[in-house]
This record gives sequence, C-alpha cells and structure tokens, in this order.
Amino acid sequence: MSSETSSAGAGERDHLLRQRALKVVPGGMTGHLNAAQLPAGYPQYFARGQGCRVWDVDGREYIDFMCSWGPNLLGHAHPQVDEAARRQQALGDCLNGPTERFVELAERFVARTAHADWALFQKNGTDATTICLMVARAATGKRKVLVATKAYHGADPWCTPVPVGITAEDRAHLIYYTYNDTASLDAAVAKAGDDLAAIVCAAFKHDLGVDQELPTAAFARHARQLCDKAGAALIVDEVRAGMRVHAGGSWETVGVRPDLCAWSKSIANGYALAAVTGVDSLRDAATRIYATGSFWSGGVAMAASLATLDVADAQDVVGHVQAMGQRLRDGIAAQAASHGMPVRQTGPAALPLILFEDDPAFEKGSAFTVEALRRGVYLHPRHNMFLSLAHTEADIDQALEATDAAFAAVSRRYGSR
Amino acid sequence: MSSETSSAGAGERDHLLRQRALKVVPGGMTGHLNAAQLPAGYPQYFARGQGCRVWDVDGREYIDFMCSWGPNLLGHAHPQVDEAARRQQALGDCLNGPTERFVELAERFVARTAHADWALFQKNGTDATTICLMVARAATGKRKVLVATKAYHGADPWCTPVPVGITAEDRAHLIYYTYNDTASLDAAVAKAGDDLAAIVCAAFKHDLGVDQELPTAAFARHARQLCDKAGAALIVDEVRAGMRVHAGGSWETVGVRPDLCAWSKSIANGYALAAVTGVDSLRDAATRIYATGSFWSGGVAMAASLATLDVADAQDVVGHVQAMGQRLRDGIAAQAASHGMPVRQTGPAALPLILFEDDPAFEKGSAFTVEALRRGVYLHPRHNMFLSLAHTEADIDQALEATDAAFAAVSRRYGSR
Repeated sequence: MSSETSSAGAGERDHLLRQRALKVVPGGMTGHLNAAQLPAGYPQYFARGQGCRVWDVDGREYIDFMCSWGPNLLGHAHPQVDEAARRQQALGDCLNGPTERFVELAERFVARTAHADWALFQKNGTDATTICLMVARAATGKRKVLVATKAYHGADPWCTPVPVGITAEDRAHLIYYTYNDTASLDAAVAKAGDDLAAIVCAAFKHDLGVDQELPTAAFARHARQLCDKAGAALIVDEVRAGMRVHAGGSWETVGVRPDLCAWSKSIANGYALAAVTGVDSLRDAATRIYATGSFWSGGVAMAASLATLDVADAQDVVGHVQAMGQRLRDGIAAQAASHGMPVRQTGPAALPLILFEDDPAFEKGSAFTVEALRRGVYLHPRHNMFLSLAHTEADIDQALEATDAAFAAVSRRYGSR
Repeated sequence: MSSETSSAGAGERDHLLRQRALKVVPGGMTGHLNAAQLPAGYPQYFARGQGCRVWDVDGREYIDFMCSWGPNLLGHAHPQVDEAARRQQALGDCLNGPTERFVELAERFVARTAHADWALFQKNGTDATTICLMVARAATGKRKVLVATKAYHGADPWCTPVPVGITAEDRAHLIYYTYNDTASLDAAVAKAGDDLAAIVCAAFKHDLGVDQELPTAAFARHARQLCDKAGAALIVDEVRAGMRVHAGGSWETVGVRPDLCAWSKSIANGYALAAVTGVDSLRDAATRIYATGSFWSGGVAMAASLATLDVADAQDVVGHVQAMGQRLRDGIAAQAASHGMPVRQTGPAALPLILFEDDPAFEKGSAFTVEALRRGVYLHPRHNMFLSLAHTEADIDQALEATDAAFAAVSRRYGSR
C-alpha cells in the first residue's frame, strides 16, 4: 500500500506532511510506525499526547490503545516522570560518565526483578537482545542460539523480520523452534549439539497477525532444564511485555527464572532506554563483552525510569493495565457476540490482540479499526495493543461505545454469522 | 586496571558510588565511559554540565575537552536547544507516529548535507553504520564491505573493537584495508571480486591511541572511483567527526561526496539521535530494508537537533571549534617545546589528540592528563578530544595555564629532552 493511498481519509495537514516527507525520507516513512502498513484513514503524524489520549496533526483526538507501541506505560506526559526528567535535564544528561541515576537504576532493577543480580543500560530493545546473545556466547564459548520461528526480537541483521540487506552468515548460528512446543525445542537443542549458547524466548508469543500465546509452565520449565543441562543461558525477551505482565518479570507467572532478560519500551515511560538484567554467573561474561553507545549513560532517561518504576511499584500498574485490558476484552467479546462477528482475543489482557474469525487478509479487522478510528479510538488491526495506567474505566467504556458502532458498521458490510 | 585502583584520587562520593555499582553492574561500569580505562584520579560519576564546564559528583569543576565524547557540540545545557526540547516534550515525544519535527529535520539534513537526498533517524551511531551496510547490500545485492584496520564504527558484533561474544560469521564479509593507503584499497577491492557492496571510511582516521590522519584527497578520490567502477556504495562514517570538520560533510574538505553517511553524537547536542543520509540512487534500497526502534521517531531529540543545527548554521560552529582547537594546539605545542617534552598533535584541530613522543604505554600522557585534571582540565590521554561552541579563548587560555603546570610536573618526573 503506497503512502499516497493510505493518506486518503487522514487529515489535510497529515497529507501535506506525507508529501513533504516523500521527498526527503525513503518511502516517506520506514519502520514499525509507518502508517502505510495501516489501513487508509490512519494518521501518520502526531502532535500531542496526554494520559491515554493522543492528537494527530489535524487535531483529531483518539483514545490510544497503542501507547506508542508500548513505551507509554503510565500514559503520555505523566507529570511525575516528566518532572523527574526535567530536574535531571537541568543538571545534565549526557556527560563524560554516568550520573548517580545510573547506580540507583541498576540497584532498582536488581531489587525488583526476580532473576536479576546486575543490570546494564542501552537505548534500543535491539541493543538489549543483541547484548544478551553476546553475553551468552561470551559465557559459554558456544555459538548456537535458539529462537522461535517468526518471533520478533528487534531489527538488527540477525533478527530483522524483513531479511533485506543482510547476509546468510548473520543468522548462521540461529536454530529455530516453535513457541510452546517442547518437542521442537528438543529437536533444536539436538541440532545445536555441544555448541548451544542460549535459548531465546519472548515473554509470551506475540508474533504479528497470529493469535498470541502465553508461555505454558511446561514449556518454560523445559527450556530452563535444557539450558541447565547444556550450561546455556535462558534469555527472556521482555522488550514488548515488560512491566505489563508481572512486575518482577513475566515468567514469574510460570515460576521460571531466566538468566538474562532484555528490557526496553515501557521502562522509562517513553524516554529512550533499554536494559539487560542478568544472573551472577554471567556477570564476568557481561564484563568481558564490549557494547556501548554515545547516549547509553544519559541521566535523563534514567531519572524518568526511576520515576516510572516509583509509580509502577506504588500503584500496582500491572494490576491496573490487566484490569483495564480485561474490561476492554469483555466488552469486545460481548459486542462480537451480539453483532454475530466472532473474534479471537489472545495473550495477556494488558497487551490485547483482536483478530476476526474468517479474516485471513485482515479485511474485517481493518474495517473494524478504521470505523473505531473515525469514532476516536486508535486500535491496531494485526498487532497487539497496549494498556496504560492512564486508561480509566470511563475511557474503556467510551472506547467500547465506539467499537460497538464499529462492529455494527462492519457487520453491515460483511454480514454477521 | 580495576575500578578499585582507578578510583584512588577521585572523590569520596565517586568512590562510594563505584562501590555500590560493583554490586549491581558488571565490573562496576562498562563501555567507553568506564573510568577504569582512564588513569587513577579520574572521576567516574558526573553531577552537572554547563557550557564547557562539567562537575563531578564531588563538586570538582573541570574545563571539559571531551564534550561527553562528542555529543555536546554547542556546550552543555545550551539554552536554545534545551528550550526547544522542553517545548516539544510538553507536546509529546514518543507517539504512535513521528511529529512534524521528523519531516523538518529530514528536510534540514538534506538541505545542509552536500551529498544527501534523503535521511533516516535512529538512536545510536552503531544503528546508523549498520543501516548503511544494510542499504548498500540491499542496493547492490553484494556482500563484501571494506573497512579500515582498527577503525571504530560502533559496537555491534560486526564492528565491536573487543571481539568477545561474537562469532566469526559476524565478520565473514568484511575485508580490511589501511586508511589513506590506495594500494591496500585496491588489494581489498580485488579480494572482494564481483561481490563488493561498499567501502566504509571514517571521516578521518581516529583510531584509539595512534596519530590521527586526515583523509588525503588522493585516497578519497580513489575510494570514490573504485565504488563507481564496481557499482558499490561509498560510506563515510561521520559519527565522530560530524558537524566539527565541515558543516556539509567532512569529505567536502577533500572534494569527494559519499553515497551514504552515518551521523550521531553531535547532531542533537547531547540528546540521543543518529541519522543516515543517502543519495537518490539508494533511496529504493533504503525503503526495502527494515530497521526500526521504539524511540527512533521521538520528537524531543529531533527538536533538539533542529535547534542545534539552527545554532550551528547561524554561528559558524565549525569555524569556532577549529579556531579554539587550534588555539589549544598552538599553546600545547609551545609548552611542549619549552618544557622539552615533545608531543604529536594530529587530526582536525576541533578533535584534538595529544600523544607524547617515546611513550608507547601512554605513561607520560597519562601523567600529563592527571596533572591537568588536578588543575581542573579534563583531557584524555589516548583518545581524541572535542571542542564546543562554548569554549572561549579565555577558557582555552585558562586550560593552557593548567597544562603548562602539568608539563612542568611531568618533565620533572620523566626528564625533558
């Protein structure tokens, strides 16, 4: 879908910005925020965010169920977080070394994360997942890394979901298994032979456009046992799920502790930050690898993260986002039934995914989200969404009024079952 | 050198923070900001920056010649930049799509960068260099990438200077040449055969601990010709040098235009941002690759970058940092002569490097910088340094008083020639 096409229905200012961007940005926009991947009518450019609301550049207001694809855990422009960031910015952000916030934040991650004995900080989720692989390989001296088929772990050459501009060697030591399938994990471990460095698991299965799956306890335990037996590292990628499923790490819900976790997105409520947490036995390996970035020690994002975790710990954010996600899910389920438009809702309620039955090309889903968008609700037709602390019951109920009308419109177009 | 050792001479608060960090951070600190790589006496933790001054956590003030290893082009806490960032933060930073700042900044990069027809934005310099490789490989369908021996292009597995936790395959398609050596470039191109995707050159040679070298016009033109002949991409890594050598791109000084440039560090005066600029013929390839990050479209760093470039364009920042660097260089040269302690000063004056003669283990250099540090001047004994717009003649002259005393102390210890 070209940018031209997809700007139809979006506002005039959005359209003009897309025209300007086409001249100076390849394709007008790239990456996961490219509105060309969304149905026509979605805006590309945004002006403002406040709480659970966002405004596009044409002044249209939406109840936001993407939270910037995860980062806004507490809602946009959270006063406590932004004030902490402002205070740190007035002192200094990027200096010749870290600020005290660096030590405080590492201590906080270690204190609140069940498996963690240490922490390191970066800017991108991809930085964190890549460092997990480096630490595992440095610790074990082994090369093979098991990843689930179609799992998203970032966009470096070793993991980008669109393998263009990469070489076969970038993935030479990856072996694929199927999430939640212990037999496939056994087969992949066997294939690794005596060269197994790590098993990487997303906190839950959140592949694009298919039903989400929570990890089964049997699968998680099996992954843990296989790593223990081989002396390999169990890596949980928390970039997407972190802080919304369980405060101490998502796999606390299945009673399994990883050796390494990759974090980003939600940990600083929209300020750019990523983290790796690890266990003591991998501390030496984490010291020996060399990965760094110009802005990784910046104090502002760390001050924002500390404030985010203050709020997360004080206000049971996990409980709130799960409850609000469940309220949305229950409402959607009831509407789907009443309109005779069956949907599948999978994964954690705080990261909802709504897929329509008999909708392989996401036509119904797209029509549904466009109808909701016109009524002021920003949903995604194929990707999981995100709840925040700023979503109230009233916001969910207001959103459900819009989705009810959206279901009605879609059922008129596609017919109800 | 252990953190224990190197904290000797630093302040009490710094020492206590290092002790706390040792428990929760591998090695207490990692990466290029790790003070364990500096002589004893250097602080690890910083509290504040203002103009060309930084303060460590024990309240010691330094005239700063590292500028956070590059980012602070205009000086710490530049009011115009910070105000632009504050204004954008009040609206929104990380949203469901970019803000208008994204288009404005891409337009600005295209307008002011000699070779650029388009721009993309990221967070780390490593993101930018990695994307340059991906674009070159996508455009050519070839795999081989030529890089100079010991050049620093970031810290992903393909380029980290400490190859621990990586696999041989991460560098399977790299071929090495010697900077400014056209014969070595010819040999590397021959080795690539019909599989040459790109030649990567740092804007100038700035390898750790050795004399810097500006590119010769003959070398730059030869690299350009080899790429043209092979249909490969000429990539200039501007991450270190960008905005301090030539406003339109460092290789304007030798009259050669690259196909792709990687930018970061200085482009947003300390706010986390990186960029790739490219030529029209690579636009399609840049559209086809997939690289993205949760925070890459954040409006605050882009607003900061626009304000930084406003100042850079209005006040001839390149001219100023070159002039201040030359004033420092001239003063150091005179002091070195008068104290009978010969030094080599190489590379662009705005990114000064001071290496002592007959000092293979950097003992004299380390002693010199420690003496300067005690007198309130923050230098680096092995790595190039950075000037900013905030450095005035009076600051340089004040720093030179300290370095004169430092030369005297070092010549007493090591003897003068």
